[in-house]
Amino acid sequence: MAKLVVIGGVAAGMSAAAKARRVNPKIKIEVYTNEFDVSYGACGLPYFIAGEIVNRKRLVVRSIEKFAAQEIKVYPGHQVESINAEKNTLSVTNQPSGQRLDVAFDTLVIACGASAIQPPVEGKDLEGVYKLRNLQDGEAIFQYLNRSKPKKAVIVGGGYIGLEMVEAFRRHHLEVTLLEMAPHILPNMDPDMAVLVEEYLRRQGVEVATGEMLKKIEGNHEGRVTTVTTDCRTFTADLVLLAVGVRPNSQLAAAAGIELGVRQAIRVNDRMETNLKGIYAAGDCAVTRHLITGTEVYIPMGTTANKQGRVAGENAAGGDARFAGVLGTGIARIIDLEIARTGLSERECQENGLNYATRTIISRTTAGYYPRGGPIHIKVITEQPEGRLLGAQIVGYAGAGKRIDTFATALTLGATAAQLKDLDLAYAPPFAPVYDPILIALHQSQK
Amino acid sequence: MAKLVVIGGVAAGMSAAAKARRVNPKIKIEVYTNEFDVSYGACGLPYFIAGEIVNRKRLVVRSIEKFAAQEIKVYPGHQVESINAEKNTLSVTNQPSGQRLDVAFDTLVIACGASAIQPPVEGKDLEGVYKLRNLQDGEAIFQYLNRSKPKKAVIVGGGYIGLEMVEAFRRHHLEVTLLEMAPHILPNMDPDMAVLVEEYLRRQGVEVATGEMLKKIEGNHEGRVTTVTTDCRTFTADLVLLAVGVRPNSQLAAAAGIELGVRQAIRVNDRMETNLKGIYAAGDCAVTRHLITGTEVYIPMGTTANKQGRVAGENAAGGDARFAGVLGTGIARIIDLEIARTGLSERECQENGLNYATRTIISRTTAGYYPRGGPIHIKVITEQPEGRLLGAQIVGYAGAGKRIDTFATALTLGATAAQLKDLDLAYAPPFAPVYDPILIALHQSQK
Repeated sequence: MAKLVVIGGVAAGMSAAAKARRVNPKIKIEVYTNEFDVSYGACGLPYFIAGEIVNRKRLVVRSIEKFAAQEIKVYPGHQVESINAEKNTLSVTNQPSGQRLDVAFDTLVIACGASAIQPPVEGKDLEGVYKLRNLQDGEAIFQYLNRSKPKKAVIVGGGYIGLEMVEAFRRHHLEVTLLEMAPHILPNMDPDMAVLVEEYLRRQGVEVATGEMLKKIEGNHEGRVTTVTTDCRTFTADLVLLAVGVRPNSQLAAAAGIELGVRQAIRVNDRMETNLKGIYAAGDCAVTRHLITGTEVYIPMGTTANKQGRVAGENAAGGDARFAGVLGTGIARIIDLEIARTGLSERECQENGLNYATRTIISRTTAGYYPRGGPIHIKVITEQPEGRLLGAQIVGYAGAGKRIDTFATALTLGATAAQLKDLDLAYAPPFAPVYDPILIALHQSQK
Repeated sequence: MAKLVVIGGVAAGMSAAAKARRVNPKIKIEVYTNEFDVSYGACGLPYFIAGEIVNRKRLVVRSIEKFAAQEIKVYPGHQVESINAEKNTLSVTNQPSGQRLDVAFDTLVIACGASAIQPPVEGKDLEGVYKLRNLQDGEAIFQYLNRSKPKKAVIVGGGYIGLEMVEAFRRHHLEVTLLEMAPHILPNMDPDMAVLVEEYLRRQGVEVATGEMLKKIEGNHEGRVTTVTTDCRTFTADLVLLAVGVRPNSQLAAAAGIELGVRQAIRVNDRMETNLKGIYAAGDCAVTRHLITGTEVYIPMGTTANKQGRVAGENAAGGDARFAGVLGTGIARIIDLEIARTGLSERECQENGLNYATRTIISRTTAGYYPRGGPIHIKVITEQPEGRLLGAQIVGYAGAGKRIDTFATALTLGATAAQLKDLDLAYAPPFAPVYDPILIALHQSQK
């Protein structure tokens, strides 16, 4: 009986295993993961830490027992040490027992995920200094918040996770400083949009320190964090979150002779095949293709991990599925503000040598006379002179963020702003002004 | 100096006047309307009646004075009696004074709107029986609610306005019966989706009576409404709203030799031209083109009225604009439920002889573990065997309704479900499950 082995038990790995089982009821499927939790919603961790998700079990999409019922055998706490691509075997350590075992496979899906980048400074191991990557990290932060009642948090890194954690820490009544090395937070948005979020955070009482480089983290004699020092100043802190980004866990693959691509992520084609026959990769350890530029990119996202995992699982089980690629769509809510983007930013347009124009509009999320609702800013980037849409960014209040999906759809279909000028978008006073902000943005973008 | 005359002072009429002025600063522009309010948000009336919009002035987008400042002269309370298309003149009555005047024009935009259909039953003129079409109607209902403190409302007609008024009356603590002649409410949705709304309303304590025909309305000796009788039974009522639909105000045009189209609406081309040179029509009195079928349709909507008005105004001022057409997109919120549709319903597919398949999915508006959020139902209709999207319908909780815009965009661009299977939609736990309900619906629709 053919055997599929999956390395990794979260989004891509468990999607691959589940899809393989649906496609092929006959093969043997085994999953090896160095974690003790599988198939959990890692994107939910900020809300778990915030106390909005009361029971950690709610984060688990499907338990090891449920996978077992589908004849998917999961080995938690098993570290894969090496892949032997000639013999089609893995060398694995059962971490609790220390036992080594060799595991044979016919097809392999590598879904090792990514790791939080550790900034090269001292003090990272002090009590109260955390990263947030897996469920264990989330639980550790949650327990620290409840046990040590910290008062002042410094979040290092102004990406989605850093921003979502602002909200989580605020719910625990902490003072929060957000530290970002770049001139602006939200590196995948343009500065003119990012600055709207910075201004919002400051109005909410969050200290936003941009263009400052983390230099060291120091603690007291008990080994608990007390200060964070940048190249400009020192902040007091009894909780520090390091959220400066991730890098793909591709070392295992590289050591086995698997080709890496951009950002040292595992190179795969649209069938999720690596350069070695029968070996697939998916999720945060793998590259993907950008739908607009056609180039290889590394944009680790939960959605992409799930989609790629399914494709890898289907193919590894004998099917023929393909994954088209991504637009880099992202969304986050910070307190009451919604932030979203899709396609290319100005910087990405420049990197790709595209001739582009931008238009930014401000409108409202509801009819002007409707009492709830608030401002929405939309920035649209179009290729010149043809007018093809290249990207969009949104910052606004309730109802603003998911409007990005309309742009994602238009980008996927290669539309121009002019093609969409009469777009028949849904209108009623609680949902939009009579001209939806998207229509105003598209109308402006035609010019 | 050339002179543009507009008949009608709400969405299409004032859009036409304003756009004409922007296009051509030199022409003379006059607007004649039999109402005394202009440029108000008629779609906001249910929220005004509900008491959510405290000041009626908030409903007015732009005042007569502001139009005057742009050299747009508005004549409120002026009834246009006839159009002389040979002499290019209108015969107008100044209603307050009774004075008759002749008004010459070089180009004319007819934007007379639509009227509420009056069911052919007795008792329509009793105190407490209302229609809701213009600001005067809205104010009358609002005053009646506050003056007479009615306890029990019967709404006749289960379309968008009827449903929005359920919420408005509930905010005034009335018991509400919703009466619909057809087997289901929401005639532009399919019965399987409409029934979800009916069930929701019943759970909310609203009496929903479908398949019952209004027979008579009766009152007490003071002339105030007391009962509504159908072919099945009698309901007590001290407030009745007749909301059984609208018909275009096209009599004036027809009498002048202007060609009418479907549903007796004024026939226009994509430049909003009628069959008579220099005479345009726009908004609820005019037809439009359906983007999927290419056929002439009558789907009066505030959004369309504004868009058509702009096109008519631009062309009447010497420009060359075109209006592509509509998808019949609609949205409404009833208490906590959101309802939306775009494209063709099953019935419309059948009427157009299309070979189609449907898929309906149920998912959630947020991640499963995220505490707020609720169910969302999406129905997708595709053409067979090619899989081109034909229509979509959504019923669900907060965040559900505006997802229809993604389908509207896909329909406008003629997409198939397969083209969109990997659609990179925005995901974060407060906004969607990792597979957005739209992706699940599209995935199912591929099969």
